[in-house]
Amino acid sequence: MAKILKGRAKKLGLPPGSLVYAGDKPDRKLKVTILEFDEQECREREVSSFAECLMLDNPQTVTWLNVDGLQHLEDLKNLGECLNLHPLLMEDILSTDQRPKLDEWPNHLYLTLRMLFYNETSDHLDTEQLNLIIGSNYVITLHESDADLFDTIRSRIKSGQTRIRKSGADYLAYTILDLIVDNYFVILERFGETIEDLEEELVTRPVPGTLADLHKLKRDMIILRKSVWPLREVISKLERRESPLIKESTGIYLKDVYDHIIQVIDTIESFRDMLSGMLDIYLSSVSNKLNEIMKVLTIIATIFIPLTFVAGVYGMNFKYMPELQWHYGYYMSLALMALIAGIMLLFFKKKKWLGRK
Amino acid sequence: MAKILKGRAKKLGLPPGSLVYAGDKPDRKLKVTILEFDEQECREREVSSFAECLMLDNPQTVTWLNVDGLQHLEDLKNLGECLNLHPLLMEDILSTDQRPKLDEWPNHLYLTLRMLFYNETSDHLDTEQLNLIIGSNYVITLHESDADLFDTIRSRIKSGQTRIRKSGADYLAYTILDLIVDNYFVILERFGETIEDLEEELVTRPVPGTLADLHKLKRDMIILRKSVWPLREVISKLERRESPLIKESTGIYLKDVYDHIIQVIDTIESFRDMLSGMLDIYLSSVSNKLNEIMKVLTIIATIFIPLTFVAGVYGMNFKYMPELQWHYGYYMSLALMALIAGIMLLFFKKKKWLGRK
Amino acid sequence: MAKILKGRAKKLGLPPGSLVYAGDKPDRKLKVTILEFDEQECREREVSSFAECLMLDNPQTVTWLNVDGLQHLEDLKNLGECLNLHPLLMEDILSTDQRPKLDEWPNHLYLTLRMLFYNETSDHLDTEQLNLIIGSNYVITLHESDADLFDTIRSRIKSGQTRIRKSGADYLAYTILDLIVDNYFVILERFGETIEDLEEELVTRPVPGTLADLHKLKRDMIILRKSVWPLREVISKLERRESPLIKESTGIYLKDVYDHIIQVIDTIESFRDMLSGMLDIYLSSVSNKLNEIMKVLTIIATIFIPLTFVAGVYGMNFKYMPELQWHYGYYMSLALMALIAGIMLLFFKKKKWLGRK
Amino acid sequence: MAKILKGRAKKLGLPPGSLVYAGDKPDRKLKVTILEFDEQECREREVSSFAECLMLDNPQTVTWLNVDGLQHLEDLKNLGECLNLHPLLMEDILSTDQRPKLDEWPNHLYLTLRMLFYNETSDHLDTEQLNLIIGSNYVITLHESDADLFDTIRSRIKSGQTRIRKSGADYLAYTILDLIVDNYFVILERFGETIEDLEEELVTRPVPGTLADLHKLKRDMIILRKSVWPLREVISKLERRESPLIKESTGIYLKDVYDHIIQVIDTIESFRDMLSGMLDIYLSSVSNKLNEIMKVLTIIATIFIPLTFVAGVYGMNFKYMPELQWHYGYYMSLALMALIAGIMLLFFKKKKWLGRK
Amino acid sequence: MAKILKGRAKKLGLPPGSLVYAGDKPDRKLKVTILEFDEQECREREVSSFAECLMLDNPQTVTWLNVDGLQHLEDLKNLGECLNLHPLLMEDILSTDQRPKLDEWPNHLYLTLRMLFYNETSDHLDTEQLNLIIGSNYVITLHESDADLFDTIRSRIKSGQTRIRKSGADYLAYTILDLIVDNYFVILERFGETIEDLEEELVTRPVPGTLADLHKLKRDMIILRKSVWPLREVISKLERRESPLIKESTGIYLKDVYDHIIQVIDTIESFRDMLSGMLDIYLSSVSNKLNEIMKVLTIIATIFIPLTFVAGVYGMNFKYMPELQWHYGYYMSLALMALIAGIMLLFFKKKKWLGRK
Repeated sequence: MAKILKGRAKKLGLPPGSLVYAGDKPDRKLKVTILEFDEQECREREVSSFAECLMLDNPQTVTWLNVDGLQHLEDLKNLGECLNLHPLLMEDILSTDQRPKLDEWPNHLYLTLRMLFYNETSDHLDTEQLNLIIGSNYVITLHESDADLFDTIRSRIKSGQTRIRKSGADYLAYTILDLIVDNYFVILERFGETIEDLEEELVTRPVPGTLADLHKLKRDMIILRKSVWPLREVISKLERRESPLIKESTGIYLKDVYDHIIQVIDTIESFRDMLSGMLDIYLSSVSNKLNEIMKVLTIIATIFIPLTFVAGVYGMNFKYMPELQWHYGYYMSLALMALIAGIMLLFFKKKKWLGRK
Repeated sequence: MAKILKGRAKKLGLPPGSLVYAGDKPDRKLKVTILEFDEQECREREVSSFAECLMLDNPQTVTWLNVDGLQHLEDLKNLGECLNLHPLLMEDILSTDQRPKLDEWPNHLYLTLRMLFYNETSDHLDTEQLNLIIGSNYVITLHESDADLFDTIRSRIKSGQTRIRKSGADYLAYTILDLIVDNYFVILERFGETIEDLEEELVTRPVPGTLADLHKLKRDMIILRKSVWPLREVISKLERRESPLIKESTGIYLKDVYDHIIQVIDTIESFRDMLSGMLDIYLSSVSNKLNEIMKVLTIIATIFIPLTFVAGVYGMNFKYMPELQWHYGYYMSLALMALIAGIMLLFFKKKKWLGRK
Repeated sequence: MAKILKGRAKKLGLPPGSLVYAGDKPDRKLKVTILEFDEQECREREVSSFAECLMLDNPQTVTWLNVDGLQHLEDLKNLGECLNLHPLLMEDILSTDQRPKLDEWPNHLYLTLRMLFYNETSDHLDTEQLNLIIGSNYVITLHESDADLFDTIRSRIKSGQTRIRKSGADYLAYTILDLIVDNYFVILERFGETIEDLEEELVTRPVPGTLADLHKLKRDMIILRKSVWPLREVISKLERRESPLIKESTGIYLKDVYDHIIQVIDTIESFRDMLSGMLDIYLSSVSNKLNEIMKVLTIIATIFIPLTFVAGVYGMNFKYMPELQWHYGYYMSLALMALIAGIMLLFFKKKKWLGRK
Repeated sequence: MAKILKGRAKKLGLPPGSLVYAGDKPDRKLKVTILEFDEQECREREVSSFAECLMLDNPQTVTWLNVDGLQHLEDLKNLGECLNLHPLLMEDILSTDQRPKLDEWPNHLYLTLRMLFYNETSDHLDTEQLNLIIGSNYVITLHESDADLFDTIRSRIKSGQTRIRKSGADYLAYTILDLIVDNYFVILERFGETIEDLEEELVTRPVPGTLADLHKLKRDMIILRKSVWPLREVISKLERRESPLIKESTGIYLKDVYDHIIQVIDTIESFRDMLSGMLDIYLSSVSNKLNEIMKVLTIIATIFIPLTFVAGVYGMNFKYMPELQWHYGYYMSLALMALIAGIMLLFFKKKKWLGRK
Repeated sequence: MAKILKGRAKKLGLPPGSLVYAGDKPDRKLKVTILEFDEQECREREVSSFAECLMLDNPQTVTWLNVDGLQHLEDLKNLGECLNLHPLLMEDILSTDQRPKLDEWPNHLYLTLRMLFYNETSDHLDTEQLNLIIGSNYVITLHESDADLFDTIRSRIKSGQTRIRKSGADYLAYTILDLIVDNYFVILERFGETIEDLEEELVTRPVPGTLADLHKLKRDMIILRKSVWPLREVISKLERRESPLIKESTGIYLKDVYDHIIQVIDTIESFRDMLSGMLDIYLSSVSNKLNEIMKVLTIIATIFIPLTFVAGVYGMNFKYMPELQWHYGYYMSLALMALIAGIMLLFFKKKKWLGRK
């Protein structure tokens, strides 16, 4: 399950800006991909150290630096120093359980948000932090593990005459944000289907396992909400920002992302409402089942208990029991029992306890 | 049931403005109706292509272009180009699960809202997206299926000397909005009647099916609320707008629509409160029924179990059981049983378990 | 029960300002009372047509025009025309299920609010819409049925040297508002007493009927809240209004009405909280009752079932059962039963199931 | 129990400013205490009429006029006239169920708040309205019954060189407010202890009476909240007020009172949260008890019912039942019963129904 | 358990600024540590009286005065006088149950917040008030008991060339705040683990003790929230403050603390949501258990009750019962019983009551 807090305890008492890796994927190798492009050209490289960071200064091209794996503190420190990143920002990058936020630094914007994955093997929702640094002519993305998600953007850039190649770093950043938010819809559609299946199941044949599923969904909704809700404010700030790093032409695209986030939040709230309603249905169907069980018990017991009593009476061994000597006594006793059973059945019929509920 | 998200997954990774039809009515034919009118004249035509779009430029007349069926991407693309619509706007038109919103573009306003239908055959609430583009002298409405709703407006226009004929495109847009919001009231009145019937049923004879009905109503309320709530802000923005596209004289009409939406929202909230209360009543009536069942069982069992025991005692086969030899032993045992039953009945009477509750 | 929406469906597709009577009291006769007064004089008349409406122009006197019965569309149309009322305002007057609101028109203020009645015969809360038009020297009140409530104001005006006679139309409007809000308190005190009675009943002897009463009260609270909550904003706007129609000296009186409305809302919220608490109490007392029933059943059954088993054993017909031949076998079996019963009773005593709970 | 509304119905239809006593302590005598002091002197008197009210004009001294008992309408009217109090203000003083508010009049501030008492004899919370009028050099307190609370302030004033003697009327008003708010803490500490006792009781030995206690506490919290919540805004307005009646040096003291009220509100909310949690615990412990009862019944019944059946079979009177003739038939039947009982016990052990839960 | 209010009752009626110790640790000795440092030097001393307080005036060095133990009113009074602290501020220091707040005084800022501890021996959350006074070149911390927490800061200061040594009093104050907020994360991680363990336990084997644990966690969340929520506003005010006491360079560090507090609050809310969900699961699992118990009882009882009746019938002692004489009567009766049992089992199978649920 997605942990809500990760490794914060390790940092207690350290000075601010101390670099401590707080995640739980300690063995990943560092993988750095650099994609430089302008309207004419597009070059992709993988590098092994951050010595060459200075080339980000070329104002003609847009550079996208993508860092996979955040365990290599020394490399990150180098990166931070050559880009002049504040120690607090570096600390934020390594705190992999942050809520989405936007910090404005003199030469760049720092944005953190959560990518969502549905982990098929363990069948639960996972989140991962994406750190995004937007400079005048570069975008840096830092995250813990492979983000295959970005491959579609990379191929769009390489494929040529798209808008991205003609626009600046801010539009590249928008493209990344848009992809991540679109991915939220994919996750939500999946949840929507699960919820509808569960709803169907609830009405037709509720089983105790349903409750555990409901609980898992509710918990996933808590994590989803926690991941998405603050992003609304982040994008809103970005859109309204007079920062020279965001061009006005990119503003309407960010507005579109903002609309999408609002719809994501709206949908999460609707799902939460539905899940609450489904819990009520489940609990009530459990009550109905108990009622039905009790009804069966009561009908059987209340019919046979008096009959058994009558049989018990005539099973007594008193010396003088006139009925026992009667020739038709046995049949009369059976008739008596039938009469009692009949009265009971009539009573239940009046109470509407018989037949299909 | 109205799906909350539709086909968003298809668009993952596509560049912004990619035209993908996200709805679920793939086979509809495109049907385009053009209604041009001024105070003197009114002409209606159906067209088969968007080549003639330029005639919207005639500033003397108001043109209402109504498009049924959104699957014909090529035609829509032509329309978008000749009207100079932004690719993001075109994308919004095809995303048929959007929340109501208002976007202001340089030459027109784009407004999306949800039309509500009560689907009688499948007995549930359906919603459909209406896209509305308001220009200086034209209104374009785009939606997935036939909107018979609009026929009343069309005939009002054709019938002659009404206010619409004398007013501009903004008043026509108001008329459409007003019709859709008035239709919400029709849907709500229908729900109000269903809720009152259900309430009546709950108090007199609750059945398990009631719960499923309650759940369906609650779910419909979630969808209703999601469809109407954001519209409030949309109309409020429209009413306060200094946009030259909305004339001041239309403002008081929009204020009236706004008041209606507030009342719709108010009514939805009241219905939600009522439905919550009804769920409590239902659950409690289930509990009461269980209590009644248990009472019957307990009364029968606790009266007869001791009697059966007495009968069992005198059914034992011990050689020396003096009572068995007594001449009136049998009658005395019956009297003992009657006494026990009597005491039990008195006890239940004291507990007030007997009689009509 | 007070309907939440009335006859909205009838208006679907009609042009704005169409006059359709939406209420449910179709047979009332129109009754128009005109009360003209200044500091010296006071004249009351009943009229049968609206031809003489022009006399409202006399700036020296204050005129109160009270209209009972809103089914007479022709008369209302005449009134609207001679007072120059906007068609949308006329439509609002006839939509008898509106939420309270204040509209400012060039020459008058239009205010709609809800009068509350406790209908003794059907034992439920009823609401009726009061339409109030405040002009420079006249007040018009329009409603569906007799408002006997206004008689007290009328007699205060006629009785002479009161503040109303010396003040203008705005003070008369305040007097009407104040009366209606004071009437809310009367309704609330009545509810307060009902709630306290019910609370008393709940603790001492809960009956299933209690739940229906609770539900009725909760529903009435929903209607009350819906009727009063928006009025807060209406009066607040009125009080802060720079409209020349409201004199500053009337402001402090309106502030007083505002304080009263806040207290009404506060009280409704407290009642809602109390009713929620009472529902919990009721449900819990039902559970307790079930527990008690089950305890009785369990005690009786678990004592006698083993005893009956012992009797059953010695009622078996095996040829060789030594105990049956013993001289004191019978008494020993009775002693065994007494022992079993005793152990059971001790067990129940330890569990604290016996005695007063 | 503290009534939420008192005697509002009596005032229906009366003109604004009509003096009607709305409280429920009709027999109290009027008691007026005047305390005049400056830095040098301090004089206390009791007066029997309001003829001498004019002496409040002495600008050198601070006068505290305390009025016990609000039934003497004639006296209050005199007081109101000589102090030039507005009829609406006089009406507010007599409406003893008001929510806290602050009204600014030209020459004085009118403040109403609620004093809380824990009535030991009837064991519930009581509230009483305190009316406070702050003038340039006088403070008037009006309330229904003896406020012994004020004795500590009076003795602090008389005792000499305290801050109150040196400061003006505003500081005296602060002192009164501070005392009342401090008294809230006393009430809250008392509730805190009751809640902790109840919590202890809930976990160790829940009894049905617990529920009634919980309900009483919840109800008291509703009243407390209603009494304190609006006071926050009142004090905040008073603190920020530029009114010349409140000196700047008194501001920081009022800020302190404000902080206390925030803490009172915070504490009430925490208590409410705790009480909700306790209700859940109680309801759940009732369910657990039912489960335990049912478990006992089920264990006893399911063990003995099959055994009794076996005994019943061998108690049948068929002529030809071979087992009955067997020499060890009886012992074999007992062994069979023991076997059945053993299997049942193993089943229950597997289900973990035996032993300490 | 952490008390919510402490000793407020003692102060009722005392003048403002009266020094009364409201805590519950009466026996602690006073321990005062003074740490003076600048970039070159760092001196630590313990002092026994506050006579030497004047040395705080040295503008070249930063002085951190740490006071353990707040019972020594005379010493505190001396401290307050030599630092010119307002009596209300002194009173706040001794009110050890305050909600976090920030007061701005002419020469210093007063800040109170809550330190959280997890008391391992009594296994519950404890809070303690930290009072923080920030002057131009000094920071004073006052609290009731040893704060070992501060040792890490002290050793960082002593260890030499860290940022703290080069920065002013405001940065020292930030360091203290940061440490306390980081400690919140440690507490929250601990709660996170407890919640996950409990969740695991709930799903696999719910025991009644689980409920008590849930309740304890919910209660701790109430206290946590009460302690942290107001701190958000405090730090936000501090960060935005134009107070010359907070340098701009410290602002970005305070922003970082603010982000952390937001995350703490977010996490508390998520935990609260999860705990609610878990309570639902628990209650529902209790219901399921009852259902299972009832099912077992019902199956056993409804199978054997009719069988026992049949046995009872043939155990009757009527003289003329033909079946009894039949040679295979016994076997036929057994066959009849087997038939009845079989029908019952089929019925239960159809109801899906048999087998693994």
